[in-house]
Amino acid sequence: MAARRIYLDHNASAPLTAAARAAMVAALDLPGNPSSVHAEGRAARRIVEDARRSVAALADADPGNVVFTSGATEAASWLLRPGWKMGRAPLEISRLIVCAADHPATLSGGQFPENRVTRIGVDANGIVLLDDLASALAASGEASGVTLVAMHLANNETGVIQPAAEIARIAKAAGAIVVFDAAQAGGRISLDIASSGADFTILSSHKMGGPKGVGAVVSAGSTLMPAPLVRGGGQEHGHRGGTENIAAIAGFGATAADAMTRLGEAGVVQSMRDRFEAAVLAAMPDAVIFGAKVQRLPNTTFFAVPGMKAETLQIAFDLAGIALSAGSACSSGKVGPSHVLEAMGHGAHAGALRVSIGPETSEDDLAAFKAALATIAARRAA
Amino acid sequence: MAARRIYLDHNASAPLTAAARAAMVAALDLPGNPSSVHAEGRAARRIVEDARRSVAALADADPGNVVFTSGATEAASWLLRPGWKMGRAPLEISRLIVCAADHPATLSGGQFPENRVTRIGVDANGIVLLDDLASALAASGEASGVTLVAMHLANNETGVIQPAAEIARIAKAAGAIVVFDAAQAGGRISLDIASSGADFTILSSHKMGGPKGVGAVVSAGSTLMPAPLVRGGGQEHGHRGGTENIAAIAGFGATAADAMTRLGEAGVVQSMRDRFEAAVLAAMPDAVIFGAKVQRLPNTTFFAVPGMKAETLQIAFDLAGIALSAGSACSSGKVGPSHVLEAMGHGAHAGALRVSIGPETSEDDLAAFKAALATIAARRAA
Repeated sequence: MAARRIYLDHNASAPLTAAARAAMVAALDLPGNPSSVHAEGRAARRIVEDARRSVAALADADPGNVVFTSGATEAASWLLRPGWKMGRAPLEISRLIVCAADHPATLSGGQFPENRVTRIGVDANGIVLLDDLASALAASGEASGVTLVAMHLANNETGVIQPAAEIARIAKAAGAIVVFDAAQAGGRISLDIASSGADFTILSSHKMGGPKGVGAVVSAGSTLMPAPLVRGGGQEHGHRGGTENIAAIAGFGATAADAMTRLGEAGVVQSMRDRFEAAVLAAMPDAVIFGAKVQRLPNTTFFAVPGMKAETLQIAFDLAGIALSAGSACSSGKVGPSHVLEAMGHGAHAGALRVSIGPETSEDDLAAFKAALATIAARRAA
Repeated sequence: MAARRIYLDHNASAPLTAAARAAMVAALDLPGNPSSVHAEGRAARRIVEDARRSVAALADADPGNVVFTSGATEAASWLLRPGWKMGRAPLEISRLIVCAADHPATLSGGQFPENRVTRIGVDANGIVLLDDLASALAASGEASGVTLVAMHLANNETGVIQPAAEIARIAKAAGAIVVFDAAQAGGRISLDIASSGADFTILSSHKMGGPKGVGAVVSAGSTLMPAPLVRGGGQEHGHRGGTENIAAIAGFGATAADAMTRLGEAGVVQSMRDRFEAAVLAAMPDAVIFGAKVQRLPNTTFFAVPGMKAETLQIAFDLAGIALSAGSACSSGKVGPSHVLEAMGHGAHAGALRVSIGPETSEDDLAAFKAALATIAARRAA
């Protein structure tokens, strides 16, 4: 008999919610293509448009300003490129500014050549250096063209939440376009594109309990848009070609519709997360919890244990039936130093462990985590 | 009680096969990210790699040369761009040659500027003009850089099958890279990338009974590749970032694994298709069936009835419970003249109707189609 597994890796991918699962299974039986005009096509179209309204509501946006993509990474690749349009007129973005602790999809600079990308550092708590952002914007200068500022709202490793309104205020004052990567923030903290100041917000379905393979770009308007990355039959108002991924979009819509309820439970999740942290510190008092002094996602803790390799710890937990991660899960089998910790000036640590929980994380899960910690602590002491 | 619907629009999107559905539902319950190293991550990884082997087998290719995308349109957008790599060295593609009857994802020219795209016409049967292809290749000339030739293997509207080996032979003789869009051909006719001569073959899952939202690029090698379109965490051997769409990939793998069986039934499907065509001609003897003189997909018929608008016919069939299409389903609500018929010199027809069937199409479906035809023919005569 397989032992019960405990899944504490929501930031890599959250388990599918019951509502998302049901919506997906129902959608599997619809044969239609949403671009077809017959009854089957119209049924598929309704699913897409219902989901669009739910996703728009999550960001308090207009459904007409939601473009579905195959995920947050495609969304970033679409936005982070020089070729844009203002209405029908081409517009060239001259410079990209990102944050050194961004997810690789943003940090890579997308399709911008390397010499047009500026990376802004973070402080020891993981907060982007606002003065450096302002200086970089002043240096690029409005005269030399339009600048795009793209940064994460919440960090995938530490859970640290960036000062969105401040970033947007500084960027807007310099005439820049603001993109927030809310892949980890969506469904976990309140998103309101009007108050965040974002021109574009990137959402990921599978980080918030929806299916993998779908995400969205939510925009404040529709005049200024990047040229299509995926060009085909004119779907998504001409912004993203290809037959819509009905089942995944249905699941994304269902999880977005649930998000308000889940946001109401954020306090419960945070209390549980705090107890996980307390357990770590009780078992290993010299453990370091990153970003603990600043606002973080309620579900995430990222910690290092002096002298212990994160990979070793991760494997020990896995063997004990507990799934958690050493750093982020952003590429196949890649194990290396965390660029997030390096950016925070904590690069000397031998990696760190991430526990990212969800609403279903239970007392039993916490007890199992404590038991595994005790075994590890005993081995460490021996 | 809802009347039974009859779905004759497989080329827009085929109904999900039972095997694909079962594989997807099973995958929905796996929380892991394939990039995670814990047990849940490894389980997700196994699904992706099993599916990769099944898709590779369909094209008689090496699994290492299969890159999953979010669909055929993303695959085309990825391949149809100037920026490529030969190993790590950048390679600029100077010219793109496509076919005037291609799907919009190819016909659009992808990310090539319009002045670097050449469109080769087709004859009255819809077959690409090979002499024109040779002339265009000679005109662009090897000295001026590398040319990419991208064409459909089977037409989405007519089902007409292109002479792949001839196209590849002519293109290769001129040093060009050959891309075949097999979105409609995959799972319906035998694909063998070695004998087709393709350097790259584009596959769509949902046209062959798998889920929407996933496709693949199958390459003959791995040295010469386009630079990533979707850049993120290095998934798909660095060719396509973003967390893998596990459920859709699982479904694609299952339908690809079934494809050999379905190919064995192609004769049965073709006999049924021929009976649909016979029914059209019996009811309306002046109907024109496009591409009837050349090799076509076994499941597709595309016909026009003089003096009758395709949209009107399509709606009449829809009201009779039968889903078929007027042209292709390539963008939301778009109804316009078929660029395929125009390319074939049949632009004067008021559109055409496409019937695209599948292995499950039954005698009852044919009987209902005949009854609807009789009603339409009677109205026409009145």
